[in-house]
Amino acid sequence: MSETVTAAVLIIGNEILSGRTQDANLAYLAKGLNDAGVRLSEARVVADTEDAIVDAVNALRTRHAYVFTTGGIGPTHDDITAECVAKAFGLPLTRHPEAFRRLQEHYERTGVELNEARLRMANTPEGADLIDNPVSAAPGFRVENVYVMAGVPRICEAMFDGLKDGLKGGTPMQTRTVHSALPEGQLAEGLGAIQARYGELDVGSYPSYRPGGFGVAVVLRGTNAERLDQATAEVADLVRSLGAEPDISAD
Amino acid sequence: MSETVTAAVLIIGNEILSGRTQDANLAYLAKGLNDAGVRLSEARVVADTEDAIVDAVNALRTRHAYVFTTGGIGPTHDDITAECVAKAFGLPLTRHPEAFRRLQEHYERTGVELNEARLRMANTPEGADLIDNPVSAAPGFRVENVYVMAGVPRICEAMFDGLKDGLKGGTPMQTRTVHSALPEGQLAEGLGAIQARYGELDVGSYPSYRPGGFGVAVVLRGTNAERLDQATAEVADLVRSLGAEPDISAD
Repeated sequence: MSETVTAAVLIIGNEILSGRTQDANLAYLAKGLNDAGVRLSEARVVADTEDAIVDAVNALRTRHAYVFTTGGIGPTHDDITAECVAKAFGLPLTRHPEAFRRLQEHYERTGVELNEARLRMANTPEGADLIDNPVSAAPGFRVENVYVMAGVPRICEAMFDGLKDGLKGGTPMQTRTVHSALPEGQLAEGLGAIQARYGELDVGSYPSYRPGGFGVAVVLRGTNAERLDQATAEVADLVRSLGAEPDISAD
Repeated sequence: MSETVTAAVLIIGNEILSGRTQDANLAYLAKGLNDAGVRLSEARVVADTEDAIVDAVNALRTRHAYVFTTGGIGPTHDDITAECVAKAFGLPLTRHPEAFRRLQEHYERTGVELNEARLRMANTPEGADLIDNPVSAAPGFRVENVYVMAGVPRICEAMFDGLKDGLKGGTPMQTRTVHSALPEGQLAEGLGAIQARYGELDVGSYPSYRPGGFGVAVVLRGTNAERLDQATAEVADLVRSLGAEPDISAD
């Protein structure tokens, strides 16, 4: 039996919703979670407003084993993630002693003033565990199954890399990809039949429209390598039966 | 009085959640909606599963003036958006005569067989209006306030560009940006005071960590150009008072 452990990502920030910034964290987290045997099953992007953040945290943390938030943990007035997560859990927001110590040390070393605004970055919901920030010191934190990380990609990635090994995943998903130069509509019928025979696998079909013409990537995902290889061989046979050459890759 | 018209984007597709594909549509739609005076206030990414899609469509369409979905309208078994939107509205899924005509014409012209799988792309919830697809013929569609578009960025963008002028926006948001080489924590206090004085504006602060050192972009958004310019001048003065040079841009 394979066991499925799911996660959600909550991206917090007006800059993503205004189109100013292209999110770069979701794909990184998705891949990393996959490596850890955790399946990312939904993601949300919300604005920097208390109701939106609290509602999303509460909706997601009850549905998934893990929730990862990005953004809103800096020193400025629009960084309200810590307050909102505290509110979502009904916990007081307190100054975390170890976070305070790290900020003090960091700002002393760099000769920068630890002012009131920067001190806000030491606030967490009471009892939170810290998430290390090897880039700029100000830590993220975890409350129960909610992991609060920075939005700046370099920092988000470093925080996630540091905590990833502590996640309890289920059976890891494996992937096989069959590329071919066929148009998707020609593969569709045979592909549907293969998906029907392999109900435990996800068989996805992703067309590409390049200047050179049509192409399609069939992506098979599942936890059972043997079944995955069988289904992949069937997709390759289907591609050949339609007169094209399959290009198979695995990860 | 300024009027706010909000929208949500629903990104449908396992390939985004597996990290295989980096979403490229959200930022494009966000910018285009902004130009149309529509404020993107939330986005979700869901898997290719019926419950997830139906629930998200119903949650978002009651909360926002507009919902834009991307993905899941191709010819293969994992393209289930049309069925799911029909189910969300309690409408039967029917073959749309004009969509059928367009597919027939397209496949005749290109000498490709209009097989059963490709015919699925003519299915829409009963009574849907079509959204033109100038790239590959198979149309998107609209039911009430829900606009169903392709996931392939070239097609998604072309569909959105074609329908954008028909959206009824509120007062358009304008943006001013003040870049400087200051660390965010030094600006934070003064910036919070400016935000407090200009409650009707969104004042966002976005740090950047480049090899050359710290920097921050203060982004001011609002519908009243005069107030926006006043607040922008105050941010620029704040930057100067901290010994740096503001670099102001407007769009």
